[in-house]
Amino acid sequence: MKSKFAKRAHFVKSSETREILKITERPEVISFAGGLPAPELFPLEALKDACNAVLNEEGAASLQYSTTEGYVPLREAINRRMKTVGINAAIGNILITSGSQQAIDLTGRLFIDEGDTIICESPTYLAAINTFKSYNANFVEVAMDEDGMVMEELEEQLQEHPNTKFIYTIPDFQNPTGRTLKLERRKRMIELANQYDVLIVEDNPYGAIRFAGEELPPVKHFDTEGRVIYLSTFSKIFTPGLRLGWICADQAFIDKYVTFKQTADLHTDSFAQRITAKYMELYDMEEHINKIKAVYKERCTAMLACIEEFFPKNLSYSKPEGGLFIWVELPEDVDATHIFTECLKNNVACVPGTPFFPNGTQTNTFRLNFSNMSIEKITEGMKRMGEVLYRELEKEKALL
Amino acid sequence: MKSKFAKRAHFVKSSETREILKITERPEVISFAGGLPAPELFPLEALKDACNAVLNEEGAASLQYSTTEGYVPLREAINRRMKTVGINAAIGNILITSGSQQAIDLTGRLFIDEGDTIICESPTYLAAINTFKSYNANFVEVAMDEDGMVMEELEEQLQEHPNTKFIYTIPDFQNPTGRTLKLERRKRMIELANQYDVLIVEDNPYGAIRFAGEELPPVKHFDTEGRVIYLSTFSKIFTPGLRLGWICADQAFIDKYVTFKQTADLHTDSFAQRITAKYMELYDMEEHINKIKAVYKERCTAMLACIEEFFPKNLSYSKPEGGLFIWVELPEDVDATHIFTECLKNNVACVPGTPFFPNGTQTNTFRLNFSNMSIEKITEGMKRMGEVLYRELEKEKALL
Repeated sequence: MKSKFAKRAHFVKSSETREILKITERPEVISFAGGLPAPELFPLEALKDACNAVLNEEGAASLQYSTTEGYVPLREAINRRMKTVGINAAIGNILITSGSQQAIDLTGRLFIDEGDTIICESPTYLAAINTFKSYNANFVEVAMDEDGMVMEELEEQLQEHPNTKFIYTIPDFQNPTGRTLKLERRKRMIELANQYDVLIVEDNPYGAIRFAGEELPPVKHFDTEGRVIYLSTFSKIFTPGLRLGWICADQAFIDKYVTFKQTADLHTDSFAQRITAKYMELYDMEEHINKIKAVYKERCTAMLACIEEFFPKNLSYSKPEGGLFIWVELPEDVDATHIFTECLKNNVACVPGTPFFPNGTQTNTFRLNFSNMSIEKITEGMKRMGEVLYRELEKEKALL
Repeated sequence: MKSKFAKRAHFVKSSETREILKITERPEVISFAGGLPAPELFPLEALKDACNAVLNEEGAASLQYSTTEGYVPLREAINRRMKTVGINAAIGNILITSGSQQAIDLTGRLFIDEGDTIICESPTYLAAINTFKSYNANFVEVAMDEDGMVMEELEEQLQEHPNTKFIYTIPDFQNPTGRTLKLERRKRMIELANQYDVLIVEDNPYGAIRFAGEELPPVKHFDTEGRVIYLSTFSKIFTPGLRLGWICADQAFIDKYVTFKQTADLHTDSFAQRITAKYMELYDMEEHINKIKAVYKERCTAMLACIEEFFPKNLSYSKPEGGLFIWVELPEDVDATHIFTECLKNNVACVPGTPFFPNGTQTNTFRLNFSNMSIEKITEGMKRMGEVLYRELEKEKALL
């Protein structure tokens, strides 16, 4: 049989992180590699109530085909939550998606023509890179500092790339760096988008998980021209298994998203939508999120203390005020993939950072996840990792 | 703001049937327009048990991120069911999708390059047309008779279109016609696919809902070279709201499908997968399907009797042995869209058939759904429709 695959099948590759996750699943490995929320915080009993209430009260409608746009009470509940962070959306501005991964994918489908430029933080979210690349986008990376994407460099790149379709940004507790875009830069990003007539895709899965510092309004809050497409999800504040995300955007965009969502999967799981809406009706979701924040804060604080205590001094790292991740930068000549391999021998795992750079340039970084491990495991795992880092960084020095 | 949409956004349109469904939702309308399964047959109490059992026994794992391929016990249960119809698949041959609509979409993504030809039945499933068109495919329609796609014409088209990527077929109780591909033609289709080196995409959502005639093995059963990609779903045998479908194909294809599914939505709802697997463990799904068959048989029989009794004689219609649909062909000069409009005035609805022809050529057909209406409503609705048809067909005659 002659090969039947479409051209695009040859340049989409399996997510490297997902492959790494498989390797790190051995029970003896303490893994900081994944990006999983803490499962012990999933509200199991409350969900049981929600399932029974939906099946008792709403019956067959909860299991029937439903509208592509999504379940109205869920969209309303989303709008009520978004209002508290400064986004005033109408029901027609919301499309429920099958996880925010689908929101990313539909964004690629709706906006990217072959050769379009996407400007993003360097590094950025791996699955967004893979998805946008499957639509043949070119990536232009803009440097970050601890306050997020550097606006001067963003402007330079906008000038240099007039075929830029959108800026892709994760302003809050970014994946993979844990960094947050500071307030003035949010405003400046909007000014630049208006000036250079580009869209902003604000991917905001972590914004609600702020456990330190001051609340910042999302980039969308400053949007005056309907240029910001805001993506978010229930995965980090409720459960990821139900695959519920949403897009908040100008209605003209949402209408087009809907036509693509029809071809993609008709609509998102009706039952998942209804049990989530029911949960928000019966229980206090903010209280639940506060529990998550408290636990993640402890774990993040513990991991940062371990870096101080167990890691060599000649590396830098982010100090996140929320989210799930810490980012570590090794001396320039150190290969993080080698560190990863050595760590694995010591039964501890991280994710090497290279795949998070769309153009694959930087090789001396890795990502640590703190949300999915007890403090005891964090302490033990970081100790193991520290031993590897001391040994390998010494070797590097000896080679110089 | 300059338009930001990708080129593909300009030729994907909202599904006409979905728009029609909105019009027909007025409570006074008896609608045969949709394709909904009978909600009164959804096993609500059993699902409640399944939800509680999953949350009690499997806990947080049922709500966490999970593998792209799908929940292993569900894939095993699918394989056990498929074995009974003559498909021997291994676990690596199965990918769980977010409804079989996603299976169709991923098939487009994986196989269709701009300008590729897809050969299909004339007419065929609307949402597959829209999806494959979004990947820039050309459609070549092959005529059907009451025994499905005509093999002589299929061979002619294969000869004429060497850039054919696949044959898209719905062999059992086809949507929209309700027709079934007869046994010898299934074998012949495989021979032709082998000879002309093309794939077959067998879309089989209705095969399990046979309520009359003899069981036929799926086309996939006769596949000797791994050319048949078999798509199916729990939507018609369980519930559509949970959005659970699957792809059964050669493992080399499944591996590539997985990379695209990662970009599309990471994985299908873990909880929906587990409650469906749990339902199949705790309850007898075949017994449930038998109930569906009994009810649909009654409704189909009633609707066919109504056509005999209330419709003019100068039209033809299919006599399905399963599935959800009957297809009506009016005299050639009658415009079914006009009939639809007139029916709506009489508070009864069908779906005009034109959008089911990928190249939009035939305008004198419509589709009737019998699964979603009581016998009383079927009788009343068909009476109303018969009145419209008699009146409008008389007018046509007067014009000649």
